[in-house]
Amino acid sequence: MSKTVELAEKLAKLNIADMFENDFYWTWDKTDDELAAVFAVADALRDLRENNKSTKIFDSGLGISIFRDNSTRTRFSFASACNLLGLEVQDLDEKKSQIAHGETVRETANMVSFMADVIGIRDDMFIGEGHKYQKTFMDAVTEGHRDGILEQKPTLVNLQCDVDHPTQTMADMAHVINSFGGVENLKGKKVAMTWAYSPSYGKPLSVPQGVIGLFTRFGMDVVLAHPEGYDVMGEVEEVARANAAKSGGSFTKVNSMEEAFKDADIVYPKSWAPFAAMEKRTQLYQAGDAAGIDALEKELLANNAKFKNWTCTEELMKTTRDGKAMYLHCLPADITGLSCAEGEVENSVFDRYIPSLYKQASYKPYVIAAMIFLAKVKDPVAALKMLDAQAGPRKCF
Amino acid sequence: MSKTVELAEKLAKLNIADMFENDFYWTWDKTDDELAAVFAVADALRDLRENNKSTKIFDSGLGISIFRDNSTRTRFSFASACNLLGLEVQDLDEKKSQIAHGETVRETANMVSFMADVIGIRDDMFIGEGHKYQKTFMDAVTEGHRDGILEQKPTLVNLQCDVDHPTQTMADMAHVINSFGGVENLKGKKVAMTWAYSPSYGKPLSVPQGVIGLFTRFGMDVVLAHPEGYDVMGEVEEVARANAAKSGGSFTKVNSMEEAFKDADIVYPKSWAPFAAMEKRTQLYQAGDAAGIDALEKELLANNAKFKNWTCTEELMKTTRDGKAMYLHCLPADITGLSCAEGEVENSVFDRYIPSLYKQASYKPYVIAAMIFLAKVKDPVAALKMLDAQAGPRKCF
Amino acid sequence: MSKTVELAEKLAKLNIADMFENDFYWTWDKTDDELAAVFAVADALRDLRENNKSTKIFDSGLGISIFRDNSTRTRFSFASACNLLGLEVQDLDEKKSQIAHGETVRETANMVSFMADVIGIRDDMFIGEGHKYQKTFMDAVTEGHRDGILEQKPTLVNLQCDVDHPTQTMADMAHVINSFGGVENLKGKKVAMTWAYSPSYGKPLSVPQGVIGLFTRFGMDVVLAHPEGYDVMGEVEEVARANAAKSGGSFTKVNSMEEAFKDADIVYPKSWAPFAAMEKRTQLYQAGDAAGIDALEKELLANNAKFKNWTCTEELMKTTRDGKAMYLHCLPADITGLSCAEGEVENSVFDRYIPSLYKQASYKPYVIAAMIFLAKVKDPVAALKMLDAQAGPRKCF
Repeated sequence: MSKTVELAEKLAKLNIADMFENDFYWTWDKTDDELAAVFAVADALRDLRENNKSTKIFDSGLGISIFRDNSTRTRFSFASACNLLGLEVQDLDEKKSQIAHGETVRETANMVSFMADVIGIRDDMFIGEGHKYQKTFMDAVTEGHRDGILEQKPTLVNLQCDVDHPTQTMADMAHVINSFGGVENLKGKKVAMTWAYSPSYGKPLSVPQGVIGLFTRFGMDVVLAHPEGYDVMGEVEEVARANAAKSGGSFTKVNSMEEAFKDADIVYPKSWAPFAAMEKRTQLYQAGDAAGIDALEKELLANNAKFKNWTCTEELMKTTRDGKAMYLHCLPADITGLSCAEGEVENSVFDRYIPSLYKQASYKPYVIAAMIFLAKVKDPVAALKMLDAQAGPRKCF
Repeated sequence: MSKTVELAEKLAKLNIADMFENDFYWTWDKTDDELAAVFAVADALRDLRENNKSTKIFDSGLGISIFRDNSTRTRFSFASACNLLGLEVQDLDEKKSQIAHGETVRETANMVSFMADVIGIRDDMFIGEGHKYQKTFMDAVTEGHRDGILEQKPTLVNLQCDVDHPTQTMADMAHVINSFGGVENLKGKKVAMTWAYSPSYGKPLSVPQGVIGLFTRFGMDVVLAHPEGYDVMGEVEEVARANAAKSGGSFTKVNSMEEAFKDADIVYPKSWAPFAAMEKRTQLYQAGDAAGIDALEKELLANNAKFKNWTCTEELMKTTRDGKAMYLHCLPADITGLSCAEGEVENSVFDRYIPSLYKQASYKPYVIAAMIFLAKVKDPVAALKMLDAQAGPRKCF
Repeated sequence: MSKTVELAEKLAKLNIADMFENDFYWTWDKTDDELAAVFAVADALRDLRENNKSTKIFDSGLGISIFRDNSTRTRFSFASACNLLGLEVQDLDEKKSQIAHGETVRETANMVSFMADVIGIRDDMFIGEGHKYQKTFMDAVTEGHRDGILEQKPTLVNLQCDVDHPTQTMADMAHVINSFGGVENLKGKKVAMTWAYSPSYGKPLSVPQGVIGLFTRFGMDVVLAHPEGYDVMGEVEEVARANAAKSGGSFTKVNSMEEAFKDADIVYPKSWAPFAAMEKRTQLYQAGDAAGIDALEKELLANNAKFKNWTCTEELMKTTRDGKAMYLHCLPADITGLSCAEGEVENSVFDRYIPSLYKQASYKPYVIAAMIFLAKVKDPVAALKMLDAQAGPRKCF
């Protein structure tokens, strides 16, 4: 039995009826079965591609991407995922559009979706705004489909909002599962999601939030560490706490990187901005208060600078499980002595983990493709089996 | 008999021999049969897609888009149309090209067209320039094809010039025909193409010109209303007059929105700039007279402001046929109290018509695809029948 | 026997085993057989397309383009080549990416290549940098493939570096071979690669370098002419000398356009910047010395202006073989009286050669496609025969 058929059999045992024609906002909207399905389909699509089998499920159709913030990894992962399935990417560049004319989100959403099978949106800049934009967009296309304007309801893949970054954390977790030899080996493992110093300010909170919201579902002991004041959204901490209680793991908060790293199996040191400051920034932007924004930036940078010792050093790594914790990062990292004078991680640590970090990133295209696959294919079990048995080659000669 | 076969039979009765390998500049270049063919093929392609049948007629090939002005709707419609037929869009971004080096249009045209099956151009900014650019471009590729430089002569689809906006008005008309239950029901219907106030200035004239040049062909009573001085091109008024005489309809000009709306079956209130002012602006740009342009802009905005009462209100809508005229707009509209303080239309009017307006827009991808189809397929009747009978699914699972 | 099968038979006699999974940096990395293979495959792909046969060898997959300098011709040629083979182009726009964050080339290279079959890079701006960037990039993806991060090692096609511009010069040579009726007719032909005046400064050296590095392999008498101080890289002159010795041709340097043009069969008058000045410019940029750069620019423009008489006139053309030398240019040219007051070539000369110049450019998509084809297809002889015999139509109706 091929790996793909094996994974299809596994998929057949999961309750995934609700995934068809559905959207992917946050991992905690999804059941354990649904997340397991994403991992299974991602692995199957990778297996098919490694065996030079076509994974095209669309003969034509568009994948629309909207990046309201810069992106390399996620942009190329989305493009790769769409191409893998037979969709062509069409990017909405708001600068080349008429959106500045005061067009509503509802209108834009419908105007770009006439032939869209999937919509990927990154909107992570402003607290309280990113998710709202995605929701407004999807409500509009759902209505558009109902009213006979759109031939099909496109599916949302959240490419990062102010709350979660599910394509990132699902790729992270796919890497963890594969590295630890299966999801059954994760119980009791200690994960340190910790703040780290960066010379820039205002990095999104969606990665730490996404990590504590997802990793707590696997019976792991998740520790969130940050300097005082660098809190993440309280609602997501609640999610993490509830997950841990249900999965038999734990969720703890500490104010010390050392404590978090101690005996950790996995470390994820990464900078982010304080939630309260980001809320304030959103208000200042909305009020058009440029002086206020400047002042806030200075204040935040000065505050960050107090915590330069929050950095992932060789010393700290030695205190992890056997001195060999898995080091995760969503990339790009602020690397001390390479990309900046003082940053999130020592160059020698980062350098040693490069192959693992790139492998971690390599799951993202497959995770995105799996999310689309499960939302678009009515019988994914049969589809995987047919692709494995009958599809033509991806490269023909 | 399927809807597509029915439409193919209808197509078989039309004289469309000249459409093969031809371009689409203005609707008034085309015979009634040729326009009927576009509507029939657009409907057939929509029917095929709604029935999940592949409409790919190309295995590979490029659709080149050149947007010399911003675009969302038309950009995505063109991309959708190309994708529907199997072409990949390649956009010519003049900022990333070497065009500023003084390259001629003739050279650019050939350099981007080696494997282009279709060229879509928007060039609507300057009176006397837009159409000229398209013509120069197409003359160059026709020559290039003749000289053995280009394997194929690409087909032009005018995505808006200074004279006409045929993909817009053909989509508008497709919506009208479908809403009124067939082209035979349009005779004697009153259409009000009227100017409306906008806080911006310099909007293209191609929509009102395109509407009077097209809608007068269906035996309708077309009224063009605008404040004094806001004339459109005289040549196009001539076209409208000749059309009306031939079709048994009428073409009238008035200087009152009220008069135009009275008992109208269809209203199309929309801002545009005075033709004479736009001619002057072109001259100022060519002379590089920045101060002159600023002065003209101020003068035009001040002049616009005299006509703020030219706006589509609930009051006015009540005076239309049964108070329920069809409200058309090419979008985005300037909506009073939503996208601006005072604009083309009252929010409550606009809001009520949203599903209809979006439906109107949804015809554009199919209209563009039909224009390409008819220019590229030697026997479109047979092709539609084969697609209906034998094509694989668009979405495979 | 079809032309494609004939070309496939020719290909079968060449030793091209090393081309599979290999990159294309410089023509002088390649054996004569390997270059002959590129020409043969390019001609075969053109023949297939002219006979409406599909040349798709990929069912899905990405072609990544990175243009660190503006481009029209090469951008559209790369897009055409990818489309011809079934790959979708995804452009890395460094402005929309997170590269400014200090990300390493190694990281970017892997992050954009998860599903990349080919990478096309233009990086011609800085002496000593362009090739280095391409090499660093390819080392990174080779490592990434070895470490199991990338499913496949993408192939490099050098779309212009600081040293060579192989897709340009191979297209130039394809045009020369076809115009002279075969490679066997090139022996003893005189080629004048000469500097010409341009009102701009700092044009890349990769074209003249590429031409002397390639044309000297065909037994031709290649003359490089430029004003004193406008030397090209010494290493490439060495390559040209060695080539000429081996091929039975010659490589000569003169400081007179007249001498170079005298009895020439082919002339290639084109502006470029002095190598020494470009080296200095790179250093100034690296030091962030804006004033130094300004001063250098002024100095170079003043120096250029001394050589306005280095221009391709009707007078000079009369001195070539029968007054009818083939005139080559990579385009766009600086045309006296058309795109500038004084430039590389007189308008009447340029104008007479336009069909030939455009034809020259038209080989580039096929040359790029051939480079990809030979790097990706294990048995290109069999593949061409199968495409000729069994592939479906490119345009289906």
